[in-house]
Amino acid sequence: MIPGELRLFPVRGLPEIAPGAALGSLIARALADSGSPVQSGDILVVTHKIVAKAEGALVDLATITPSVLALEFARRWNKDARHTEVVLRQSVRIVRMDRGVIISETRHGFVCANAGVDASNMMGGDMLCLLPEDPDRSAARIASEVEQATGFPIPVIVCDTFGRPWREGLTNVAIGVAGLAPIQDYVGQLDSQGRELRVTALAVADELAGAAELVMGKLDRTPAAIIRGYRYEPAPGGARALLRKPEMDMFR
Amino acid sequence: MIPGELRLFPVRGLPEIAPGAALGSLIARALADSGSPVQSGDILVVTHKIVAKAEGALVDLATITPSVLALEFARRWNKDARHTEVVLRQSVRIVRMDRGVIISETRHGFVCANAGVDASNMMGGDMLCLLPEDPDRSAARIASEVEQATGFPIPVIVCDTFGRPWREGLTNVAIGVAGLAPIQDYVGQLDSQGRELRVTALAVADELAGAAELVMGKLDRTPAAIIRGYRYEPAPGGARALLRKPEMDMFR
Repeated sequence: MIPGELRLFPVRGLPEIAPGAALGSLIARALADSGSPVQSGDILVVTHKIVAKAEGALVDLATITPSVLALEFARRWNKDARHTEVVLRQSVRIVRMDRGVIISETRHGFVCANAGVDASNMMGGDMLCLLPEDPDRSAARIASEVEQATGFPIPVIVCDTFGRPWREGLTNVAIGVAGLAPIQDYVGQLDSQGRELRVTALAVADELAGAAELVMGKLDRTPAAIIRGYRYEPAPGGARALLRKPEMDMFR
Repeated sequence: MIPGELRLFPVRGLPEIAPGAALGSLIARALADSGSPVQSGDILVVTHKIVAKAEGALVDLATITPSVLALEFARRWNKDARHTEVVLRQSVRIVRMDRGVIISETRHGFVCANAGVDASNMMGGDMLCLLPEDPDRSAARIASEVEQATGFPIPVIVCDTFGRPWREGLTNVAIGVAGLAPIQDYVGQLDSQGRELRVTALAVADELAGAAELVMGKLDRTPAAIIRGYRYEPAPGGARALLRKPEMDMFR
């Protein structure tokens, strides 16, 4: 073990996730079976997609009747109007709606493309995957399932891949957090020169989610990862701390 | 070694960096001295700040005469007008300038707060640290110094901590890249269900930079980290691939 070392590895051997599945138990078992059981101090990162599957947060396109706005937008940009309709229904505020892209605020307060509605990796061709209803609650439930299986609690992060203004490519971010402080706050602390730090708050939950993506990959069907060796700040969690308040938002 | 495992660790024992320092050589030596020498396949992440120090990308506030705009803004928001002036000089376009915050585009094309101008961690109280003039070239030079020391090339990422709209907290991102493809492109690839992936491009260089931040920390003065075990796509690099083109930018 190199001093200060951090290790990440994918959770392999998970079964296909069905609605009602106890994800935390399945993950703890898969890790134990693979010979790398959960350890105290580990952090578990799971994709929103298996959480949505386990919670049944799915919509069958066949049940959707598009609104006039969805029909117009879909026709103009060559989209499926039913898919567009689901995106609109998952939104509470439209931030941008142009060039075939809808960037909106979800009821959780996340600003992202398509309100987090996702088609890939689903069982049937006509099923859409929504964001979990309450990703913090999902994270807490998974944490308590892991604790039941192992006897100790570990933090859990539910993640999704979001785009961002000005930069190309998506990165994994935290949409649900249980058991750790999502923001590492350095307010008032001094750097090595004895100066107060200008950079005061790091979104470590997002950095942890992004790091986990590097071992999960998109094609390998490894929707969960373990991070070992990170000295997190224990806290109830809550992804809300990662959301900028409207009055501080310069990009409404 | 757990299958698929990724390891990260900080580069400890670096000396104070002086202008003209050969960072790659110093880092290779520090790693060898610590008993964890660079290995083929490793990725090196270094903060922009030691790069700027090594390159002498520093400004003495005493040499700065603020413009009228800098004076007005600084008076209104209780800032140092000379610091504001340096930020304006490092900018080619102002995106937002309000509430004491300047978000601008640098000549490299990065959109960030204060044009990347930074005061903390510098030797004297009146010195500001600028972004490296050409962070890709910095990354390539560090890579070639490491290669000289070790006999094999490794990718190098120069990083900085940027804020982002809608989310609180900063995350580490890549501002210079040499030796790997900063974007992992999945266009046309199929997921485990045989469906084409909707998510087509991941900003892995940013995720690698963010992961490195988790082991570098802000207070520990470890301005470099090694990432071991990531199967990167070898490429010349270039952080430009991470910049959204103006015609695709919905948040000018």
